[in-house]
Amino acid sequence: MKIYDWPTGPYPARVRIALTEKGMESRIAFEKVDLWKGEHKMAGFLKKNYSGTLPVLELDDGAFIAECTAITEYLDNLDGNPILTGNTPREKGEIHMMSKRVELEVMDAVSVYFHHATPGLGPDVELYQNNEWGLRQRDKALRGMRYFDSVLQERPFVAGEKFSMADITLVGGLIFATLVKLAVPEECTALLAWYERMKERPSVAKQLALKA
Amino acid sequence: MKIYDWPTGPYPARVRIALTEKGMESRIAFEKVDLWKGEHKMAGFLKKNYSGTLPVLELDDGAFIAECTAITEYLDNLDGNPILTGNTPREKGEIHMMSKRVELEVMDAVSVYFHHATPGLGPDVELYQNNEWGLRQRDKALRGMRYFDSVLQERPFVAGEKFSMADITLVGGLIFATLVKLAVPEECTALLAWYERMKERPSVAKQLALKA
Ligand SMILES: N[C@@H](CCC(=O)N[C@@H](CS)C(=O)NCC(=O)O)C(=O)O
Ligand SMILES: N[C@@H](CCC(=O)N[C@@H](CS)C(=O)NCC(=O)O)C(=O)O
Repeated sequence: MKIYDWPTGPYPARVRIALTEKGMESRIAFEKVDLWKGEHKMAGFLKKNYSGTLPVLELDDGAFIAECTAITEYLDNLDGNPILTGNTPREKGEIHMMSKRVELEVMDAVSVYFHHATPGLGPDVELYQNNEWGLRQRDKALRGMRYFDSVLQERPFVAGEKFSMADITLVGGLIFATLVKLAVPEECTALLAWYERMKERPSVAKQLALKA
Repeated sequence: MKIYDWPTGPYPARVRIALTEKGMESRIAFEKVDLWKGEHKMAGFLKKNYSGTLPVLELDDGAFIAECTAITEYLDNLDGNPILTGNTPREKGEIHMMSKRVELEVMDAVSVYFHHATPGLGPDVELYQNNEWGLRQRDKALRGMRYFDSVLQERPFVAGEKFSMADITLVGGLIFATLVKLAVPEECTALLAWYERMKERPSVAKQLALKA
């Protein structure tokens, strides 16, 4: 299998961390798509993923799976032992809810802030920006961090008692926040403590050690 | 189990159609949350779903599952026969990808158009609008319809050879588009023919027969 990505990108990080958690890295070849040159918006790449985003997984028969959640769902189920996306209906429901909530309230909001209210990937790639919307999404992301702090005051992991895809998504969100210099508010002590615990996981440590 | 929703809302429609497909309606009680009065943004409801959106499923022990995808994942797996979200890793990956792509490229885009570039739920509920962003999202949704038309020229269902959650999401998107008077471009003949086939399914027909 092959993954098209940009190694240090925050969304690619989600799939790379999942791969390490699953012990599957050796089964994947990586090919770089240069975000800073806008290669993800060019016709050849749009055939792989209509939405023009990274990462994309290519299966051995040439089929493509885009979207971090879908790629994680695929990889996690390959060995019949879905440790990241849940075994029971209840785990599946709660993990998908919390992972999506991290996207809506933190990660995608940080992304919109980056692409709309900062120089983003530069003027050749950011062909349209809506500054006001970008700033709103920054504020939403900060509120989202406070919400996840309240969640992590009550439980050790984002979706409950076990590490899951929802934790990986929030790690991706905080990687993105760090890139755009959006600090987690210091009163979010449970969120900050959780992030320190996450950085001790080999999968996250390995990702954070990558150089751009 | 109980679902908090607004019966004719396009996102609630996704879960209601899923319930009928699964033959599970009799197991669910429904409670209305009045979108037009902004009840989904009030403190009591935000405790059920931080994001302040419908639908939300309440389990018998009082736990809440929000987000259509997560609710569908939960309900579909309850009977050990996940006909909507996929049996194999490949089906799961492809269904999650296509359902998410429908959200990104059509359904959520129509929603942003509605809330930002039309009167939406009215001035008491729409406390911030970004008209320019709303109009951009409308154009994105129309492009998305053309993309799904191209997909449906090649295969009978959104995620391949079988009806799935991805079809339900696109039905939700077109229900929303109809509500906001955003017509599917008439050259999208494969998308329009697929929608006619969907309307013949009892689950979709039942939903479309509901009065607001
Ligand atoms: N919904 C997508 C988002 C992926 C995403 O936004 N990836 C970034 C790279 S870190 C990207 O491609 N950004 C370019 C853009 O949004 O135009 C997913 O979950 O995979
Ligand atoms: N991501 C949510 C979106 C749900 C959604 O937007 N629902 C509508 C009702 S049809 C809503 O609550 N809109 C109010 C709002 O967005 O403020 C899901 O998939 O469940």
